[in-house]
Amino acid sequence: MSNTLLEHIDSPSDLKGLSPSQLVQLAEEIRQFLIESIAKTGGHFGANLGVVELTLALHKVFDSPRDRIIWDVGHQAYVHKILTGRKHLFHTLRKYRGLAGFPKRSESEHDAFGAGHASTSISAGLGMAVARDLKGEDYKVICVIGDGALTGGMAMEALNHAGHLGTDLLVILNDNEMSISENVGAVSKYLTRLRTDPTYSRAKAEIEQLLRRLPAIGDKLTKTLEKIKDSMRHLVVPGLLFEAFGFKYLGPVDGHDLPLLIDVFQQASHLRGPVLIHVATEKGKGFPTAENAPDKFHSWPTAVKLDKPPAYTDVFADALIELARADERIVAVTAAMLPGTGLSKFQQHFPERCFDVGIAEQHAATFCAGLAAAGMRPVFAVYSTFMQRAYDQIIHDVAIQKLPVVFAVDRAGIVGPDGETHQGAFDLSYLRAIPNLTIMMPKDENELRHMLYTAFQLEGPVAVRYPRADGVGVPLDDVWSPVPVGKAEVVVDGRDAAIFALGPMVQTALKAAEAARVQYGLSIAVINMRFVKPLDRSLILKYAERMPVMTLEDAALAGGMGSAVAEVLADEQVSARLLRKGLPDRFIEHGGRDELLRHLGLDADGVIKDLVAFLGVELKKTSDVWP
Amino acid sequence: MSNTLLEHIDSPSDLKGLSPSQLVQLAEEIRQFLIESIAKTGGHFGANLGVVELTLALHKVFDSPRDRIIWDVGHQAYVHKILTGRKHLFHTLRKYRGLAGFPKRSESEHDAFGAGHASTSISAGLGMAVARDLKGEDYKVICVIGDGALTGGMAMEALNHAGHLGTDLLVILNDNEMSISENVGAVSKYLTRLRTDPTYSRAKAEIEQLLRRLPAIGDKLTKTLEKIKDSMRHLVVPGLLFEAFGFKYLGPVDGHDLPLLIDVFQQASHLRGPVLIHVATEKGKGFPTAENAPDKFHSWPTAVKLDKPPAYTDVFADALIELARADERIVAVTAAMLPGTGLSKFQQHFPERCFDVGIAEQHAATFCAGLAAAGMRPVFAVYSTFMQRAYDQIIHDVAIQKLPVVFAVDRAGIVGPDGETHQGAFDLSYLRAIPNLTIMMPKDENELRHMLYTAFQLEGPVAVRYPRADGVGVPLDDVWSPVPVGKAEVVVDGRDAAIFALGPMVQTALKAAEAARVQYGLSIAVINMRFVKPLDRSLILKYAERMPVMTLEDAALAGGMGSAVAEVLADEQVSARLLRKGLPDRFIEHGGRDELLRHLGLDADGVIKDLVAFLGVELKKTSDVWP
Repeated sequence: MSNTLLEHIDSPSDLKGLSPSQLVQLAEEIRQFLIESIAKTGGHFGANLGVVELTLALHKVFDSPRDRIIWDVGHQAYVHKILTGRKHLFHTLRKYRGLAGFPKRSESEHDAFGAGHASTSISAGLGMAVARDLKGEDYKVICVIGDGALTGGMAMEALNHAGHLGTDLLVILNDNEMSISENVGAVSKYLTRLRTDPTYSRAKAEIEQLLRRLPAIGDKLTKTLEKIKDSMRHLVVPGLLFEAFGFKYLGPVDGHDLPLLIDVFQQASHLRGPVLIHVATEKGKGFPTAENAPDKFHSWPTAVKLDKPPAYTDVFADALIELARADERIVAVTAAMLPGTGLSKFQQHFPERCFDVGIAEQHAATFCAGLAAAGMRPVFAVYSTFMQRAYDQIIHDVAIQKLPVVFAVDRAGIVGPDGETHQGAFDLSYLRAIPNLTIMMPKDENELRHMLYTAFQLEGPVAVRYPRADGVGVPLDDVWSPVPVGKAEVVVDGRDAAIFALGPMVQTALKAAEAARVQYGLSIAVINMRFVKPLDRSLILKYAERMPVMTLEDAALAGGMGSAVAEVLADEQVSARLLRKGLPDRFIEHGGRDELLRHLGLDADGVIKDLVAFLGVELKKTSDVWP
Repeated sequence: MSNTLLEHIDSPSDLKGLSPSQLVQLAEEIRQFLIESIAKTGGHFGANLGVVELTLALHKVFDSPRDRIIWDVGHQAYVHKILTGRKHLFHTLRKYRGLAGFPKRSESEHDAFGAGHASTSISAGLGMAVARDLKGEDYKVICVIGDGALTGGMAMEALNHAGHLGTDLLVILNDNEMSISENVGAVSKYLTRLRTDPTYSRAKAEIEQLLRRLPAIGDKLTKTLEKIKDSMRHLVVPGLLFEAFGFKYLGPVDGHDLPLLIDVFQQASHLRGPVLIHVATEKGKGFPTAENAPDKFHSWPTAVKLDKPPAYTDVFADALIELARADERIVAVTAAMLPGTGLSKFQQHFPERCFDVGIAEQHAATFCAGLAAAGMRPVFAVYSTFMQRAYDQIIHDVAIQKLPVVFAVDRAGIVGPDGETHQGAFDLSYLRAIPNLTIMMPKDENELRHMLYTAFQLEGPVAVRYPRADGVGVPLDDVWSPVPVGKAEVVVDGRDAAIFALGPMVQTALKAAEAARVQYGLSIAVINMRFVKPLDRSLILKYAERMPVMTLEDAALAGGMGSAVAEVLADEQVSARLLRKGLPDRFIEHGGRDELLRHLGLDADGVIKDLVAFLGVELKKTSDVWP
């Protein structure tokens, strides 16, 4: 890459002098850069190819960081990062201590607001706009939001409030008719109608013409009136949804026509009050494969391993399909995460029993409560981090009423390259306080199957959490067997100490126990906790009364499983030695899952090191104790 | 009340034979019953007077419990309760073990879905409608939602999904242009336009007439065209918001015209797909005072005490006004709880620095994050139970970015007559896991002032929680003094045991300690914990190493403050005796706050009883130890 325009772009100010044709050339260069770069690092692909012109136009017209550009979700901010002095770091994208995959205030003054979850940008932007007004400042605030994120409840709350306040705020609706999987909902259909109706763009001109010509035609009156009626409908309809929210509506605009975008943004920057510009883009624009199969190209995987055990997500999906065959009350719900949760597969088998509600976790949980209240057995497949959005509904609509809703909590624990905003760190802490709820986590993919089976047998709400990881590689049983509720499992017995481990940490504990045996002659029991609620109090007490106990979990220490064990020991007046290992009291940055677990001391190596120190065993080795 | 129609109504089926005029008479009787009854018991007043005819019409036309009537929020379901066999229990409304103030599945088969929080009904109803379709059943599902609750994000998510699915679902929009305080938002303005525009109801008829007359008029062409244009706009505009969501729109309908309501509901019951009926009602209808000042009559207080200490809410509001005078960065945000949070008062002083965002907790939190990111010092005044709605935003938009947002968490702990859905039981558990967050609770109203002052000094997010209760009656300091972060306060020292108490429980602990001294000669230390995060680890250890420790909190035991203390003791390898007192692992029913605390053993009596047993002191008395 020599003699390119891109190599001379180190900040948005470098765009200001470029001619329209140079900008078009730059767009092409950025596309090439993205394709080559993401192919190496992994990352969100289609969304970024789709906003090349949009981003260039924004930075050409507006004056970041003085003007605040807020990217909703933020996975489409790569071009923004490239244009704001970070292209030389792009090879570190989403890697440990590298460039974040989302906007991050601590990374650049051009990242006006961090993101990761959807539908937050208008709220944040409105806050900034109000602060600007109160302080008598005069910068612009621009929120860029996708059509999927726009239909999230909080985005609508924000539109409603922005329309009410009437302050200057620019919302760019990046409409690629697809969020992560196919877009869902009535509003999406409405947007499509706006976007695809060829008569709309001509309607305004036409009606004016007609009105001017009218006095001359006389006898063609009736037909003309019909024509006016049609035209007028088009004049009134587009954007009325947004006008009901108090926004001026401009668009739809071709999101790949760079001069047009610049023109429209410039015009909009002079309008007062809340304005929404509807920009139609193509996900994966410029990369033929991505354009044809945008769903697959939402995110580009870093590498593909073969002959590996199935991921927990896939085992969940297969088990759900089998269970749904036997029990027609079972229905599946997701909030815009059809492929991510494995439900795409379920949908193929049971299209009528699979519901993608869009980016709407609150609604999803209560929708499930309604299904359950009417006799169905819904499962809400959701990432741990996104389930935070449904917290009140889990309490208020599901748990208080003891409705049998199964929460399949995917991406529990450390998630990896998506970083702070996506770690599934808190679900045990926030779920454990909820009465009537059962919480479990399997030690391997086979146990996941039995736990899912068990969850559907119970007459109340259940959360089954599992990691974003491949399974262990154990054989999968053909026959379902219920997991006894509230019973932990002694995987290996021992005399010197016991590790109460949760989920995939059971495997880590087993490795550590074996190393401790070989290297230190220690006899370490490993207990598969299985249930965080209800806890197996008697087994905990049995071990804690005899030997030191370590708890091991891929979840926040504050209020997590180890915290529950500490509560039991206190409540039962057992004076035991307890070492709690889990996620510390800070947000965990991005990086590979295994890499992060290692840095956190949550690999076998870290466990044995702490265990040996805890037990006061003299180290036989000073180097790494586990290969 | 003899010879009334009402006394013969024990179930909705008793309505079926009544004539229109009898129903009108019955409406009047119900109004009288409500006025007399709520004046005695307390409860939500205006909302129920506003839906008398609406409720009668629903039960006349539909067939509950076969057809499912779902009341959003549910504070307007008194008439429904009266008509479904519960009028003889009405004197127990909102009392301990009495009738609940909200619909409750366990209370009646006519309560299709429980409520308490806003904006859930369409989600729940859609779940039921889908279950009905899958099972091949054919009942009706009717969701009754207020105009305030409709603008909550999850209601819009549900509209979007319902429009997408297209199944039969009836949404009754009960538009009284006011939720709890004045309604907020652009959509509200939109509804008002629909409701108040006198031309609308005539528009459709008019345009048809005009079109028929047109050929004859010729020369008046231009004027006529203008008229058509206006009429057409009216034809297209009403309900278009809902049509964008895929709903058929009917209305607006006079919500106090009983025959008309019956007629419209009957018509609507034959329509397919999602239908929204816009019903205009008057809050407090039939009670002159309530009609004139509906805000005050949202809820009727049970009794008014004079000469009592100020409520925490009022002390918060006054302190905030003082602080805002000195620091113009301070702005206040509420989500439709302007009077309840005390912010009405703040608004009078600083109308431009007070933001009621409507029923939109998610947006409120991120709006605050935006304000803070642009240099303001926002406080979000919110009830503990409603803050559950903003959980993800507190993590994702506030805490990750360490933005200085103050959460004034009102109604923390036991709330009282609103019951299960409203107790502020979980905030410590769900907040404590969040990194970067400071959590405190004052022992009295004077400390609340200093804590609020301290909160605005800190450079990160802070939650200050306080109860729905009157203060202690201590004098309020004139001078602000910062509370040292993470430092507990020894209120009374002691030798035999220490009580680490939080918030108002400090007063309870002091009473219990004094009684223990008088009656058992015990020397009990009482520590005002002040901070749940960061904890005063060294003070905890200091006491725990010397004596048994009790923790005392008005919050869930699972993951709460006592749990945090258990974590510290475990982590520090201190083998101490710990007794944790707080809210047990079940949803706490409705009743008086003091009454509930007593039943839970969280009054001085309960504390001393447990303390004495914990310490193994022989009881000197067997009767109640505390008057």
